[in-house]
Amino acid sequence: MKTVSTSKSHGGIQGVYSHASEACACDMTFAVFVPPQAKNGPVPVLWYLSGLTCTHANVMDKGEYRRLAAELGLIIVCPDTSPRGEGVADEKDNWQFGSGAGFYVDATQQPFAANYRMYSYITEELPALIAANFPADMSRQAIFGHSMGGHGALTIALKNPERFKSCSAFAPIAQPSTAGWSKPALEKYLGADEAAWRAYDTTLLIEDGKRFPEFLVDQGSADSFLQEGLRPWLLDEACKKAGIGLTLRMQDGYDHSYNFISTFMDDHLRWHAARLG
Amino acid sequence: MKTVSTSKSHGGIQGVYSHASEACACDMTFAVFVPPQAKNGPVPVLWYLSGLTCTHANVMDKGEYRRLAAELGLIIVCPDTSPRGEGVADEKDNWQFGSGAGFYVDATQQPFAANYRMYSYITEELPALIAANFPADMSRQAIFGHSMGGHGALTIALKNPERFKSCSAFAPIAQPSTAGWSKPALEKYLGADEAAWRAYDTTLLIEDGKRFPEFLVDQGSADSFLQEGLRPWLLDEACKKAGIGLTLRMQDGYDHSYNFISTFMDDHLRWHAARLG
Repeated sequence: MKTVSTSKSHGGIQGVYSHASEACACDMTFAVFVPPQAKNGPVPVLWYLSGLTCTHANVMDKGEYRRLAAELGLIIVCPDTSPRGEGVADEKDNWQFGSGAGFYVDATQQPFAANYRMYSYITEELPALIAANFPADMSRQAIFGHSMGGHGALTIALKNPERFKSCSAFAPIAQPSTAGWSKPALEKYLGADEAAWRAYDTTLLIEDGKRFPEFLVDQGSADSFLQEGLRPWLLDEACKKAGIGLTLRMQDGYDHSYNFISTFMDDHLRWHAARLG
Repeated sequence: MKTVSTSKSHGGIQGVYSHASEACACDMTFAVFVPPQAKNGPVPVLWYLSGLTCTHANVMDKGEYRRLAAELGLIIVCPDTSPRGEGVADEKDNWQFGSGAGFYVDATQQPFAANYRMYSYITEELPALIAANFPADMSRQAIFGHSMGGHGALTIALKNPERFKSCSAFAPIAQPSTAGWSKPALEKYLGADEAAWRAYDTTLLIEDGKRFPEFLVDQGSADSFLQEGLRPWLLDEACKKAGIGLTLRMQDGYDHSYNFISTFMDDHLRWHAARLG
């Protein structure tokens, strides 16, 4: 692991790091905020998964999580959204596929399967790296994310309920297997057989019996992706049927940007801190 | 005035606007945050002046001012740092002069005098535009800034003490007329006669009798520009001699970045709000 930069912030350290990823077969960059409390021993870890087109940097720059994370004593880990670099298959002019659009899946189709293994990267390789290099209490983890990263957080929590104490999302893609901006990506990463997509679709994972105790979801009413891409009512239906507690808050007048995310960041950090103990 | 974008944030509106500037003889872009309290009538205005290489966007993205400005009921205006565009004289490879480096002066030397009139822009043209287009109580204004913009805030407050209720700065350039990264710019904008530079140097303005009741200044101890470029001890000496109240806080381990600024943003907003009434 290589330190790209560190900078003191709110009494803690905001760092950027890179490493040669085995899962993604390329160099990967990620951001970690370590709060001041970590001087006295390991602290809980909150994972933030970003949306389409983002890198580790967007939420680090615009998410406004450090003030309260420093107060609550949380490590915040912000991974990249896809493998990147020369030799990594991509569709340069398509912001919904390839670089910046890993969708947190393990691709099975070539040429993407060689690098696009974000599910393994986020659930196995990066946690091991965090555990080895940061003052992290890995017995206390939580996960949240935005849009494509909200989809990532929900699906990863449903598949690893023993690992995460809590899960929340800002404007998540509720049903990626039928939404226009995600369905073509799932087909290219996972193949034409839709059965394989179910492992990466929140509503279908719930339909197939996966469970998580409760979710917090905020959604802006002025979000231009609400009707076609996000559709939180599908998550609401699935949770109701399954008896999963869903706190779904429609936020009047908010869009899909980091102005929305940063407005409700404090609420989400407190939600997780209360459940991380 | 043209609206470039608006986005709801913390109950208020973060907007970006552009207009044809007469002072700078080019199109200028600026950001304004209007807090929710403005629905009930005009609210105070806090000006934030940015540092070298910045546009209006840096503090808007990374400054983390909206949460508390929305609570305190402050309009935050974030101007650009220089004129820009085709036909505007520039030194493309010099980050300390030209685009992004207006130093808040009215240039007198050609070809720069045609556009680089940031002092008039910030103190006359933009305030008139704000007064005409936003729910701003122009009888209650305050000003702050970072680095080159800290220099801008201090000099503008000293020359307009009747207009501003308060002034603060993050890591300001205390004496630009002798610092390596600003002296060449003052010479190119204002000519070789150093007497003309005194009107844009905080320590020399104080020496020449300009006064302001008190300043709050935060400075990071790990700021790589501290020794050569910023030198807050020169401001301390000048204020002590003149009997100006200076709260100068050396902040252990902080650098020159927005991680430093955002850490102490709340303190500065509260400082200004208390004095704006």
